[in-house]
Amino acid sequence: MTAGVPERVELLDVQTIRDLALGATLLGTGGGGDPRVGTLMALAAVREHGPVRLIGPDEVADDGLVVPVAMIGAPTVILERIPGGHELDLVMAGFERLVSQPVTATMPIEAGGINSTIPIVLAARRGLPVVDADGMGRAFPEVQMVTLGAGGAKSWPLVLADESGDVVTLTAAADNAASERLARAVVVGMGGSAVVAHYAVDAALLREWAVRHSVSLAVTIGRTLRRCRAAGLPASEALHALGPVCGARRLFTGKIVDVRRSTAAGFVRGQLRLVGLDADAGQPAEVDFQNENLVLRRADEVVAAVPDLISVVEMDSGQPLTTEGMRFGLRVHVVGMPASPLWWRPEALPLVEPRAFGYDIDPVRLEVAAR
Amino acid sequence: MTAGVPERVELLDVQTIRDLALGATLLGTGGGGDPRVGTLMALAAVREHGPVRLIGPDEVADDGLVVPVAMIGAPTVILERIPGGHELDLVMAGFERLVSQPVTATMPIEAGGINSTIPIVLAARRGLPVVDADGMGRAFPEVQMVTLGAGGAKSWPLVLADESGDVVTLTAAADNAASERLARAVVVGMGGSAVVAHYAVDAALLREWAVRHSVSLAVTIGRTLRRCRAAGLPASEALHALGPVCGARRLFTGKIVDVRRSTAAGFVRGQLRLVGLDADAGQPAEVDFQNENLVLRRADEVVAAVPDLISVVEMDSGQPLTTEGMRFGLRVHVVGMPASPLWWRPEALPLVEPRAFGYDIDPVRLEVAAR
Repeated sequence: MTAGVPERVELLDVQTIRDLALGATLLGTGGGGDPRVGTLMALAAVREHGPVRLIGPDEVADDGLVVPVAMIGAPTVILERIPGGHELDLVMAGFERLVSQPVTATMPIEAGGINSTIPIVLAARRGLPVVDADGMGRAFPEVQMVTLGAGGAKSWPLVLADESGDVVTLTAAADNAASERLARAVVVGMGGSAVVAHYAVDAALLREWAVRHSVSLAVTIGRTLRRCRAAGLPASEALHALGPVCGARRLFTGKIVDVRRSTAAGFVRGQLRLVGLDADAGQPAEVDFQNENLVLRRADEVVAAVPDLISVVEMDSGQPLTTEGMRFGLRVHVVGMPASPLWWRPEALPLVEPRAFGYDIDPVRLEVAAR
Repeated sequence: MTAGVPERVELLDVQTIRDLALGATLLGTGGGGDPRVGTLMALAAVREHGPVRLIGPDEVADDGLVVPVAMIGAPTVILERIPGGHELDLVMAGFERLVSQPVTATMPIEAGGINSTIPIVLAARRGLPVVDADGMGRAFPEVQMVTLGAGGAKSWPLVLADESGDVVTLTAAADNAASERLARAVVVGMGGSAVVAHYAVDAALLREWAVRHSVSLAVTIGRTLRRCRAAGLPASEALHALGPVCGARRLFTGKIVDVRRSTAAGFVRGQLRLVGLDADAGQPAEVDFQNENLVLRRADEVVAAVPDLISVVEMDSGQPLTTEGMRFGLRVHVVGMPASPLWWRPEALPLVEPRAFGYDIDPVRLEVAAR
């Protein structure tokens, strides 16, 4: 079964949202939170308010203002604190008080997990379209790791709200890294997760620096995974079908023999250890993660690393796993996908290369590093 | 030498500011930061812009808006990060964007250390008067420990700014305790200290719930200490003179034999151990502090505790010590002063009684507990 190039989606309805959530879990590279919560929220919102229009980056009016909304915090915490529409209303009201023009559309800041569907909830509640794009083309853990920022967009004004009704606004910051530090501190003070609106962009910056059509891509990936599963095909077949869609390729197949994780300072950090199966039989490999999977090593050789995508897919079901869903004994494929070319621009790469995560590793590009 | 009742001060000029800073160090009960930094800033500001008018709470117009400004954070950090006027401008500009009426005056939020003089810097720069009052009548470490809050004032909008130009605004909070938790998180993210504007109050609330004429009181205390020192009188004489001014009484005299402190989560916490001298010869005593001195124990008996004031004064010089200035070997008087009666109102006491600081101690009132 092949999926071909991603189809352009124009309406986010019940089935599209389900496919989006599934596909975004693969693009989320282990992060972005379990998509079920966000999916349920988005489904409830479109059932109440009707489906949401998905518009291309070129359809945003020249004087339009696009404000991405997302959950921020440790996925393990987000899972236990289902956000209500109320927090989305609070951040958007807070945002509109700060800017002098109406918000014309919202957008996911990342392609991954809960944050692919959260903007749909806001869009449905407010009758806004969602832009078919995002600011990462995957999920990343920190505020400054956004293509829009590499293109010159400021992460502030940044508005955070929590379930208690607390609203905190960052109105000025030295840079996007300072914004990350301060927002993270607030998120910890809010109990570990919050709703955030940030990286408001105009049409010109959006067109050049957003990862284009990534919502449609996630829907196509999800649809492919769903159809393969319905046809009883193993994950390896689905991955084969996804090759032409998103460049997915199997990097390692093995059994999870150890998962270490800790939640601290608003992040989940940890490591996954695998022992190879099939063609990789007996070989060890490990995946480091900080909310998202960062580095895949095999016998101390770096096979893949950020900004390229490293996802873990259950062998039988083809289900992409979030880092909090990884468990001892699961048999999985580790999948690589090339990052958006935007990330390899010189303004962008320093934000997300391995050194940005504390690794003494030069950037490796998947085409070269993969076997 | 007696000082009598506090004189009403009407102009904050160079000498008045010096006396204010000295007197506020006694009222600051070990906290509020070393007053030297704030004094130098205030002196520079009045030299550049002229002296600042001090107005009584009853002189604030009925439709006036009073916005206190302060430094927030661990005193040990504040000492190393001298705030510039720039941060004060940032918080005030941030504040005025959020409220629809002009700010007519500023005020100290606490009587203690640097925070007695910081409002003078803002007032001088903006041609505003300072209200002769504050929100504690002493220093306390947390945002919700403000008489104005007990009277119903909200701590938000709360605007924080740091030396890098970062500006964070809390626009809504569940309550003043949530405001403390979130502001503290931001302060930690800002590196341990920040400038804050919060507890904007109208004239009616100010008149009923501010600690009245505490700036004049601090000036009178400082003047008394200065004159005693100039006359070569020991601290015991100065304390005797201060009795009728602020109810100061010696609770213990001894030598500091141990100081433990740690800076964590935006606070300085620690304990001072003393061995008695003179009439207290050989007796042990200890003072616990969290930015400010909280509890004085003598042979396991609680002699004094928050909200009453516990200050430590060097025996020879009469200099009140901040917690970061306490050192092994110093010979000191531990001085008690009764808290503002506002703190004993039922709406206020739960915010600052010993249990609010984690002690399993019933409130003790200085008149009863002192020997």
